[in-house]
Amino acid sequence: MGMNENVSKPLDRLSAELAGDMERVNALIRTRMASRHAPRIPEVTAHLVEAGGKRLRPMLVLAASRLCGYEGEAHVLLAAAVEFIHTATLLHDDVVDESEQRRGRPTANLLWDNKSSVLVGDYLFARSFQLMAETGSMEVMHILSNASATIAEGEVLQLTAAQDITTTEDTYIQIVRGKTAALFSAATEAGAVVAHADKTVQQALFGYGDALGIAFQIVDDLLDYSGSSTTIGKNVGDDFRERKLTLPVIKAIARADATERAFWERTIGKGQQDEADLTTALEILHRREALDASRADAIAWAERAKTALLATPDQPLRQILSDLADFVVSRLS
Amino acid sequence: MGMNENVSKPLDRLSAELAGDMERVNALIRTRMASRHAPRIPEVTAHLVEAGGKRLRPMLVLAASRLCGYEGEAHVLLAAAVEFIHTATLLHDDVVDESEQRRGRPTANLLWDNKSSVLVGDYLFARSFQLMAETGSMEVMHILSNASATIAEGEVLQLTAAQDITTTEDTYIQIVRGKTAALFSAATEAGAVVAHADKTVQQALFGYGDALGIAFQIVDDLLDYSGSSTTIGKNVGDDFRERKLTLPVIKAIARADATERAFWERTIGKGQQDEADLTTALEILHRREALDASRADAIAWAERAKTALLATPDQPLRQILSDLADFVVSRLS
Repeated sequence: MGMNENVSKPLDRLSAELAGDMERVNALIRTRMASRHAPRIPEVTAHLVEAGGKRLRPMLVLAASRLCGYEGEAHVLLAAAVEFIHTATLLHDDVVDESEQRRGRPTANLLWDNKSSVLVGDYLFARSFQLMAETGSMEVMHILSNASATIAEGEVLQLTAAQDITTTEDTYIQIVRGKTAALFSAATEAGAVVAHADKTVQQALFGYGDALGIAFQIVDDLLDYSGSSTTIGKNVGDDFRERKLTLPVIKAIARADATERAFWERTIGKGQQDEADLTTALEILHRREALDASRADAIAWAERAKTALLATPDQPLRQILSDLADFVVSRLS
Repeated sequence: MGMNENVSKPLDRLSAELAGDMERVNALIRTRMASRHAPRIPEVTAHLVEAGGKRLRPMLVLAASRLCGYEGEAHVLLAAAVEFIHTATLLHDDVVDESEQRRGRPTANLLWDNKSSVLVGDYLFARSFQLMAETGSMEVMHILSNASATIAEGEVLQLTAAQDITTTEDTYIQIVRGKTAALFSAATEAGAVVAHADKTVQQALFGYGDALGIAFQIVDDLLDYSGSSTTIGKNVGDDFRERKLTLPVIKAIARADATERAFWERTIGKGQQDEADLTTALEILHRREALDASRADAIAWAERAKTALLATPDQPLRQILSDLADFVVSRLS
């Protein structure tokens, strides 16, 4: 889920708008990633937390709260909790995917070991629930424990759907909700909840986060076939080599003739790939307009995100969140 | 943490006393381990949950609540939550330890893969927080999120302390609190909390769970050097081969002469072991009375557990919990 420079502009505006809050979130993250007894924990966490991630998810929490006129402090706890869940899932993802690079640096599982990544992830997950409990809001606990279950479920679903060329677009969206959208929507919804916003506004912000997350992940999956390595922070074709059924491939398979179907069956289904296959895959994706169709889907989700915002208070932050949805898909141009 | 038949007697009495509650806990566990989208999740979970574990932790929750006169339903939610945390940690432990057997059956990481164990563990962890949130008690959230952090911290500490022959008894107790006692004490304390027991009774039940857990783990670590394979459900000397610094070894190292120190440095510190080394290790442990001294510690912790109970209501369940403490150490005779 790397992001290129295009996206940083509305994020820069968000950062500027939320600078004071974000400073407190970062201080809280540093305090809470400490461990009195096990120095390995802050070492591993710092490697990831300080690797220059854009802190998009905590900013979504803060933005949602502020948009709803919140003046308290619970949103800072909540933002740190959401970042810890995110960091924990990254640590576990890299173990599951056997990744060696993230954000252009070696992964924790490579620098330390899988064991440390699993256990430090568990620690951060527990820490995030401590932070949530401190908000004193039972509704926040519900939203974020549900999101955590959806995240893990989505990952398991991805694991079992990988290499299965009969995977449908519905399953894909389910996986994407788990991978990305569930935490986005939990961030924006819970941000509204701690701000005591109306139910309508809570639901609107849930809808915004959900649609933004789906658009974001579709774009990420598209860039894996159409970006440059420097832009996406990983190698073009990684998903193809890992036999992941992402939206472009699902669309191409749905439109495949017999030869193409045999190609996908061999390369993704059976994992028999040679050097030239990525080029062939890209040719088929273009021929079947699978990249354009996926791009259209991403744009439609971004539009849905913007529409959802119409039910939220008309404030400068709303415009930034709306622009953020546009920027997410602008990575494709 | 296998338990032999001696231990099952007070557990049988607990089971009989709590049969109705336990049936509801088991039904809840079956419902909540399901996943609408990812059938892999209940498959992996069932392998572990239905492997004939004694359900000690959920019974501790139920017993603590009932002892405090509780008549509601929150303790059932809480008991299932505690069992899910336990199951999640077992799944992750087996990945971290690269274990191949648990409770006499192949581990999930062996039957499926590490990925499934990591992700299904995450799912169960999230599910447990959903269940806790349903109890509606913010104090329960605090207790169990703190326990979860202690568990993960203890595991990381064990990871970094392994092979370090300067490990102290204090560090060992810290690790044991994480591995075992934190969830025992959270189970009994939270059981008292949902029952709205007095603070004194909550603390007494925390103390009972903590001391019981420590006694339990010391016994487990002792059996690794003194039990038979059928009794302990794993091979004698596994901890030695895995270079774990458990209490008997820590005590033996503290009392070692130069030759013995060199032996521990080579076998545990450097991991250079041959066939005859386990026999030598056992000889040293006996010569330095390290097994007897550890046994005395286990008995002292069991006594502490029983003493803590004196501040709780004088009911038949209290006697069973007291007997349980005796039975935990009776595994050694």
